[in-house]
Amino acid sequence: MPDGVGSLNEKMGVEIVEFSAERVVATMPVEGNTQPYGLLHGGASVVLAETLGSIGSAMHAHPDKIAVGVDINATHHRSATSGTVTGVATPVHLGRSMASWEVVITDDRGKRVCTARITCALIANPPG
Amino acid sequence: MPDGVGSLNEKMGVEIVEFSAERVVATMPVEGNTQPYGLLHGGASVVLAETLGSIGSAMHAHPDKIAVGVDINATHHRSATSGTVTGVATPVHLGRSMASWEVVITDDRGKRVCTARITCALIANPPG
Amino acid sequence: MPDGVGSLNEKMGVEIVEFSAERVVATMPVEGNTQPYGLLHGGASVVLAETLGSIGSAMHAHPDKIAVGVDINATHHRSATSGTVTGVATPVHLGRSMASWEVVITDDRGKRVCTARITCALIANPPG
Amino acid sequence: MPDGVGSLNEKMGVEIVEFSAERVVATMPVEGNTQPYGLLHGGASVVLAETLGSIGSAMHAHPDKIAVGVDINATHHRSATSGTVTGVATPVHLGRSMASWEVVITDDRGKRVCTARITCALIANPPG
Repeated sequence: MPDGVGSLNEKMGVEIVEFSAERVVATMPVEGNTQPYGLLHGGASVVLAETLGSIGSAMHAHPDKIAVGVDINATHHRSATSGTVTGVATPVHLGRSMASWEVVITDDRGKRVCTARITCALIANPPG
Repeated sequence: MPDGVGSLNEKMGVEIVEFSAERVVATMPVEGNTQPYGLLHGGASVVLAETLGSIGSAMHAHPDKIAVGVDINATHHRSATSGTVTGVATPVHLGRSMASWEVVITDDRGKRVCTARITCALIANPPG
Repeated sequence: MPDGVGSLNEKMGVEIVEFSAERVVATMPVEGNTQPYGLLHGGASVVLAETLGSIGSAMHAHPDKIAVGVDINATHHRSATSGTVTGVATPVHLGRSMASWEVVITDDRGKRVCTARITCALIANPPG
Repeated sequence: MPDGVGSLNEKMGVEIVEFSAERVVATMPVEGNTQPYGLLHGGASVVLAETLGSIGSAMHAHPDKIAVGVDINATHHRSATSGTVTGVATPVHLGRSMASWEVVITDDRGKRVCTARITCALIANPPG
């Protein structure tokens, strides 16, 4: 049984602002999610991407199947130093056994910080 | 000027237990780093991997250069539900302008949870 | 000095049909580029993606710099069994030291076969 | 019914020199597999990696299942300009529904040219 966005997203301040099987959007603050030099931690972008792609895949899989993350990749284009980043996930493939989403993360000025792609396996929903 | 492991690693409980330019090891608790179903968030594994590879690349780059994360990928092999995961990073290439590390994350039983590879660009260390 | 599309693309039948620093398109036959089961070899899709992203990055880098492939990833969505596939590359980031392109490969029916992302380093063009 | 290594590997000169469910090794000539500047095409390395990981996954899956490539990533570390490259694939995870292999490609001097990871889905072998 899911509990909201989960403990990691909660403490990172990830907020889902839109979701459907065609598009999932969330925001995340830079502050509190930084690496030692005070920049947004690259892994924070990947948490955001994995969250978005997993939600979208779960919505596509529902109700017969659940989505399990298999692979994720991310390219970091520029640093984010303050404010909020926004991640937008759109499906690149919604199949019967696999779903893949592209996630674009931008900063407050609309500059692209990171591009990611996540692939989930869609497996039978265990009863109960 | 770096401040310890940074705010994200601190709140995720990442602890560096060994580091050199040949090997970097850290641990991370599952609890508090979960997705809505109570499993370790896939992105948490990537935070751990990016942290380890960045530290190793920075040590290799030091003192003339600094390391900037360019690309990361991760394959999730199995779930982690409790206890602590351990990440071990070993270099696959330490060049003049690029460094790549493989990161293997295992659970308390030694089962592999995730395999990742991170590539950092090594750029001139800005004075001051 | 470059010789056309290079020997690998030539023997694989890759044909560039459009190119600019904003968009590069090429086609490739399935026949002759198959794996043992007669399907398009997954690596053939990656050759096409790397070719397209490298051409686009080189055009962006020109004339001061050249582009060197650093990292590529690809997700295979469905098989291609005959006819021609078409790859379309669009930039996701065109920076001073790095360029990243997304490549979408579709079959004759317009169905997506593969999604890839390639990142190139842009380095000083050695004189001569 | 598979036909040897398939038409793409055949024309690229890929030769399997060792194979088991624990390790698969193949060689490939640089000549004939180059990009316009005469260097080994980055995509050629990925063809080699996808071939090796697919063979290993198929051996692991046999006889109940077949292996289908889902995702591949590769980091290019240095150029290869002549001679032969050798790819060695070792499993990072051999599961019931997924198999992942790491592939290391080196040149004639033993220098690492490329590191790749390929993930295959293991699906029921259709009868007949």
